[in-house]
Amino acid sequence: MKRAILLVDHGSRRAEANELLEEVAECVRQRVPDQVVAIAHMELAEPDIGTGIDACVGAGATKIVVHPYFLGPGNHTSQDIPQLVRSAAARYPGVDIAISPPLGLHERIVEVILERVEAAAKP
Amino acid sequence: MKRAILLVDHGSRRAEANELLEEVAECVRQRVPDQVVAIAHMELAEPDIGTGIDACVGAGATKIVVHPYFLGPGNHTSQDIPQLVRSAAARYPGVDIAISPPLGLHERIVEVILERVEAAAKP
Repeated sequence: MKRAILLVDHGSRRAEANELLEEVAECVRQRVPDQVVAIAHMELAEPDIGTGIDACVGAGATKIVVHPYFLGPGNHTSQDIPQLVRSAAARYPGVDIAISPPLGLHERIVEVILERVEAAAKP
Repeated sequence: MKRAILLVDHGSRRAEANELLEEVAECVRQRVPDQVVAIAHMELAEPDIGTGIDACVGAGATKIVVHPYFLGPGNHTSQDIPQLVRSAAARYPGVDIAISPPLGLHERIVEVILERVEAAAKP
């Protein structure tokens, strides 16, 4: 079974915002080199979610976990993204596609906050 | 010198989204109990940034670091929030107010992604 992770952010008209997700994907790839790691934007930019699912399947994945790269839950993570994923998944009945929760509250994110704050607090 | 951290998110019309920032603040408080930790929303919800700065100063802070709790940089973190902070800071010339970068790309956030993905991948 080949696994894939599809990182999905909101999508932006600003290229820099969309590029951040590519950088995140590259870091994820380094951590799980045995998995396919692809990206998609929910809206406003390409690749869209259907194209992202296509890329995962095209790379041989038979199990895909879609990760909404959002700070917290909301309509996008609970409704919009699942609907777009379901629509794409219908084309691949043999592929197991799950959706993870967004980042949410996590001790490690609190550590990142404190690191950013400390760096800014230095005189 | 008493320090404060002011966490600022976008702000939402959804109460749950705004409440997440309070939960993040509570986690930060537990990590740095010697500092004032307050929250503010950039727009759409109270307290606003001016009110958040007031709360920090009212709690005795003489040095405040504003942390934009955003995944990446953009107009909100580079323009809107700094402008709102400058406007509030003008009322407190004796208080040192800095703005940190947003969360951005960080290995610990990649670890959170992988944890969320693994939990969702379990059969």
